[in-house]
Amino acid sequence: MSAPGGGADAAAPAPPPATAPAPAPAPAGVPLTVDEDLVRAVDFTKGDGLVSAIVQDTIDGTVLTVAYMDEEALRRTLATGRSWFYSRSRGEYWQKGDTSGDRQYVREVRIDCDGDALVVRVDQHGRGACHTGERTCFYRTIGTGPGVPAPTGP
Amino acid sequence: MSAPGGGADAAAPAPPPATAPAPAPAPAGVPLTVDEDLVRAVDFTKGDGLVSAIVQDTIDGTVLTVAYMDEEALRRTLATGRSWFYSRSRGEYWQKGDTSGDRQYVREVRIDCDGDALVVRVDQHGRGACHTGERTCFYRTIGTGPGVPAPTGP
Repeated sequence: MSAPGGGADAAAPAPPPATAPAPAPAPAGVPLTVDEDLVRAVDFTKGDGLVSAIVQDTIDGTVLTVAYMDEEALRRTLATGRSWFYSRSRGEYWQKGDTSGDRQYVREVRIDCDGDALVVRVDQHGRGACHTGERTCFYRTIGTGPGVPAPTGP
Repeated sequence: MSAPGGGADAAAPAPPPATAPAPAPAPAGVPLTVDEDLVRAVDFTKGDGLVSAIVQDTIDGTVLTVAYMDEEALRRTLATGRSWFYSRSRGEYWQKGDTSGDRQYVREVRIDCDGDALVVRVDQHGRGACHTGERTCFYRTIGTGPGVPAPTGP
């Protein structure tokens, strides 16, 4: 659409460039309701203070990524409702999405039978969990087959 | 139905006790079609020869368990179509279900962006993946919350 009062070839001064609207601020996370007995059941001793945290999409169950938590990262995750990890290579805590905007809001944290791994079910915001821009870090397939469906019913 | 030639109260000798039918032999796994370039992309160096293998149910996406594979366990998994792992504590290979009967038939193996973790999607037979008898090792919930659903649309 032409500017009011001027054709495409009018000699009027160009309008100021449109500025993009500021992005909406990120919503706050919602703290989780916590079973303290189970927090104490997490066994950080086997992994030199760390446990694996398998992050899973609540929408379709996709495994998005796997990272590490120590007790502080787990506490921050439960208290903030957003995923916190510990980077072994950088020796520091990081909250997913702080840099990329691809935040993870936590719905559930589960612990495995021997207490040394967690499943963290999240609402993934932004592009996805992977630094490559893919939704999941597991975007490449090494092998495929038909499997053997389990028998059903007696 | 009565036996031919004898009523229920006939004085014929008791039949031999019924023996339970032998369990059907476990079906063979189906070897996977493999992308060799991606097998070579698995980085076993960071984990002292091991990578995490996150085992996921093909039926509903449940994360069943997490275990470790070295290159030999991965090769056996791809070649046999059943999950093989390496036990750090016992220092040996094990094929899931050999003892319990709770076998895992593999449909897909995926690799993550930096090559140090796998997702193994399986048809879980028997009771489940956990030695406790639960279907998943992640049967306990540390924390729950509502999350923050991701915004939809443009």
